[in-house]
Amino acid sequence: MKVTVVKNVLAANDRIAAENRALFDKNGVYVINLMSSPGAGKTTLVEKTILALQNRYRIAVIEGDIQDTYDADRIAALNIPVVQINTGGACHIDGNMIRESLPAFDLALIDLLICENVGNLVCPAEFKIGENAKVMILSAPEGADKPAKYPLIFQESSVMVINKIDLFPYVDFDLAKAKRDALSINKELQIFEVSCKTGAGLDDWIKWLTDRIDDFKKPRV
Amino acid sequence: MKVTVVKNVLAANDRIAAENRALFDKNGVYVINLMSSPGAGKTTLVEKTILALQNRYRIAVIEGDIQDTYDADRIAALNIPVVQINTGGACHIDGNMIRESLPAFDLALIDLLICENVGNLVCPAEFKIGENAKVMILSAPEGADKPAKYPLIFQESSVMVINKIDLFPYVDFDLAKAKRDALSINKELQIFEVSCKTGAGLDDWIKWLTDRIDDFKKPRV
Repeated sequence: MKVTVVKNVLAANDRIAAENRALFDKNGVYVINLMSSPGAGKTTLVEKTILALQNRYRIAVIEGDIQDTYDADRIAALNIPVVQINTGGACHIDGNMIRESLPAFDLALIDLLICENVGNLVCPAEFKIGENAKVMILSAPEGADKPAKYPLIFQESSVMVINKIDLFPYVDFDLAKAKRDALSINKELQIFEVSCKTGAGLDDWIKWLTDRIDDFKKPRV
Repeated sequence: MKVTVVKNVLAANDRIAAENRALFDKNGVYVINLMSSPGAGKTTLVEKTILALQNRYRIAVIEGDIQDTYDADRIAALNIPVVQINTGGACHIDGNMIRESLPAFDLALIDLLICENVGNLVCPAEFKIGENAKVMILSAPEGADKPAKYPLIFQESSVMVINKIDLFPYVDFDLAKAKRDALSINKELQIFEVSCKTGAGLDDWIKWLTDRIDDFKKPRV
């Protein structure tokens, strides 16, 4: 019975996510669902991505947080349209929360919409929002055992960004194990090793994203 | 309607947690519910606490994980009774999971039971398990904005262990802000600054815990 309820919730969410997706397709909006533990560097990656791409694409951001607007304030400072979703305690954003936030944007004027999820390595992975790609961040101080311990988010994501590589000399992070375990869960996973602090490795991430957006927006014959 | 369901779930959990608590009281078992983001250092703090206290108290551990036994294996290596709860995807442990695991122990032979929750800074804070104290870890690389962004876990906890202080020179962590914001949410919060890697600061945490256990086990007149 309990499982049935959960399945209904997920099925209802999938339906709303598909409706969001249709709306994004119609307007040519490429959408990222960005997920990680608290403090892995989601907002900083959003900032760096905006700085790299804002002259090339029209970018908007949805910030999912439990109750505050700290992250949205950081994005607004970059003169990017941003909507704050306050989940009121909930541990993830879902399709309906995204749908409710869309009237705040003119979708026809957006090329790239980045949705930053609530900081949580577990729950967000279950809920589609209508994204083109789920992107997750694993930061070096969290440890290389995370793919084996929290597999769903690695399975669902198209990209794993390994962040804070500038801390490699100071933390015990087995990079080979993290990559091997993540790829054993999801052999299609794209992996980028970056430091949002120093800027190292960000070019490869930006190139991947640019290729995806350009391919998505290419006129279909 | 949705809110009513959630309240019923929490009320049912509170009832089971109270039953667990009565059982722990009867057997003189002091119980900690240990919570944090993934990779903040829960298992390592459990290991260090066991090493410091295993000659003084009879210790047992319950490991809550989504699917694996990696953490339980680390504890079993210290010759400590340990039970693995696999939540099968769920993002926290609850009162019923603890109740189901208790037949594996002889509670009359345990002074301290440490329950390591699933790595998640959001959901575990909502579910009592029958603990004497909730203890949460904030690790320096996560950033000092976490109390303001995830307030419930700071509000519910008796202790905040700030871990990985050996990384202070390499990360931007505003210690004063983290402490100030956490105390503004919960002015009773005990704060310890430690490095489980170097051992710095652990004595204060061990003394706090020892005082609590001794007080709990003192015969009442």
